[in-house]
Amino acid sequence: MEIDIIIRNIKKLELLKEDISYLSNKILEANNVFIYGVGRSGYIGRCFHLRLLNLNINSYFLSDAPAFKKGDLLILISGSGKTDSVVIAYEKAKKIGEVVGIVCYPGKLKDLDYIIKIPIEKSQYLPMGTAFEQMALIFLDLVVAELMKKLKLKEEDIINNHNNLL
Amino acid sequence: MEIDIIIRNIKKLELLKEDISYLSNKILEANNVFIYGVGRSGYIGRCFHLRLLNLNINSYFLSDAPAFKKGDLLILISGSGKTDSVVIAYEKAKKIGEVVGIVCYPGKLKDLDYIIKIPIEKSQYLPMGTAFEQMALIFLDLVVAELMKKLKLKEEDIINNHNNLL
Amino acid sequence: MEIDIIIRNIKKLELLKEDISYLSNKILEANNVFIYGVGRSGYIGRCFHLRLLNLNINSYFLSDAPAFKKGDLLILISGSGKTDSVVIAYEKAKKIGEVVGIVCYPGKLKDLDYIIKIPIEKSQYLPMGTAFEQMALIFLDLVVAELMKKLKLKEEDIINNHNNLL
Amino acid sequence: MEIDIIIRNIKKLELLKEDISYLSNKILEANNVFIYGVGRSGYIGRCFHLRLLNLNINSYFLSDAPAFKKGDLLILISGSGKTDSVVIAYEKAKKIGEVVGIVCYPGKLKDLDYIIKIPIEKSQYLPMGTAFEQMALIFLDLVVAELMKKLKLKEEDIINNHNNLL
Repeated sequence: MEIDIIIRNIKKLELLKEDISYLSNKILEANNVFIYGVGRSGYIGRCFHLRLLNLNINSYFLSDAPAFKKGDLLILISGSGKTDSVVIAYEKAKKIGEVVGIVCYPGKLKDLDYIIKIPIEKSQYLPMGTAFEQMALIFLDLVVAELMKKLKLKEEDIINNHNNLL
Repeated sequence: MEIDIIIRNIKKLELLKEDISYLSNKILEANNVFIYGVGRSGYIGRCFHLRLLNLNINSYFLSDAPAFKKGDLLILISGSGKTDSVVIAYEKAKKIGEVVGIVCYPGKLKDLDYIIKIPIEKSQYLPMGTAFEQMALIFLDLVVAELMKKLKLKEEDIINNHNNLL
Repeated sequence: MEIDIIIRNIKKLELLKEDISYLSNKILEANNVFIYGVGRSGYIGRCFHLRLLNLNINSYFLSDAPAFKKGDLLILISGSGKTDSVVIAYEKAKKIGEVVGIVCYPGKLKDLDYIIKIPIEKSQYLPMGTAFEQMALIFLDLVVAELMKKLKLKEEDIINNHNNLL
Repeated sequence: MEIDIIIRNIKKLELLKEDISYLSNKILEANNVFIYGVGRSGYIGRCFHLRLLNLNINSYFLSDAPAFKKGDLLILISGSGKTDSVVIAYEKAKKIGEVVGIVCYPGKLKDLDYIIKIPIEKSQYLPMGTAFEQMALIFLDLVVAELMKKLKLKEEDIINNHNNLL
């Protein structure tokens, strides 16, 4: 049953505490955070981008961004690690600033500065990247939780910096 | 700890089997499916839209859509049930076709044709709609699983109808 | 013939020199610029947003933005001046910061702090907002030109701050 | 002065009547139309996509699309003809279906089935692709006008098939 698989996948996120700590530190050190992924992974990245804005962190989703510069951090999301435009962004970015990948398989991103492998149990009814995308969303929300703790922010602070016009 | 809360939230999705069945039937009966939400809920909706395209179902995310007509189905996603443009879309759509809401609280959508309440346990480190959005993604992926079964589709069919140019 | 109408529309943009000057000053004075529109008007707004990023101006498209605060500027784009979510954003924003509208008809935005009416000659083969959207793009590109001059920026500076990863 | 340059650019669109006719025929013959571009070119493509939906033509913007198949048409928009992910989409698509490019310079798209070169006079205050993007929008709106004539549609038909919920 799919729910049981999903629960087992979430339990495995327990193993990524070090990654959560590492990524949250890198985000706090960066001048600007750039996030990128294609398709559903891209929309998961956009969800994370919105939370970084709530946290008052300079953040861009790469489709709508200025130049990536020294001191900036690029976070790439790709289940296969092979999505063409993600790999291209990595090739260009690694010469400029720091790059972290969030993947299921390292694929062509295996030489990244830092790679976070999300351990996934699949099912044919969670087709293609489905299980990965679910866990990427939850993993990144756990990074948000960690950032809130490190920045000593409460839910109220998020509410106060949330979109108030739509 | 956030992971424990998330696991408890997922277990509660077991209670929504009837909703999964109902929504998947409505999707199969509709001429066209329209999906809408704002912010993170919108991006979750876009993830679902991509899977409906893989399943060869006529689907639009409302920001990029033609007219909503008789025989069409609108799926609205809003944690609070109060997001202004979601409520406006509901008010206009209910005179034309069918509308289903996916919410945490019914809010101003309480008179909808059919409302799916996702039972959520919150935490201040899963701020605002975070827990809802996670569960909305997983709930909608379970609807995809159900649609695959009803349409007798395998993962291979999804792969064959997945974006092959990016 | 449509091209002749379009040329006449562009010539009328000559009349908006004061508006170009006003809007560019407001943008330079604002802490953050927020831009919003729905449908094609929204995509024109996103084109403008990308150029503001190139100019190193703090800019958000409203679908992906933090809270709008005192000292911020909201630029709304709506041909009819009646698009529901644009009107709602205006109602909320006017109590907080400054709002400028770019419209063909003032509609429900007629009480805005400042409204820029783009004079449009229509044709049935430039249906609905087509002529307005074309002129809104060009008008906003003229605002970019004005900003470049005021900030003493050259094309080279735009190139250096342009997305370099995609 | 920028307005004079823009008017001269629009007058040059007169030379593209054959391209307008060719592209509109290809669109009518295709099973599905796919549109793609990055950055501002992408948003211009999304404006065109919305009008194709109004015209009841099966259309996808490539970021949100199923598989590209035999009988489908891909329209690529890139001022430089060198945007990486546009070139990659072209390399993959040419083995499957038909591809048309809309460019300022052919770049790496020079071997396309059909390439539409938009003749552009530039200015440093219309930086980078600005003049191209303006003309691409207007060119594509002229294709919409041609499609309306070929399909014997009036503005009223567009209004009746326009998004009626936002």
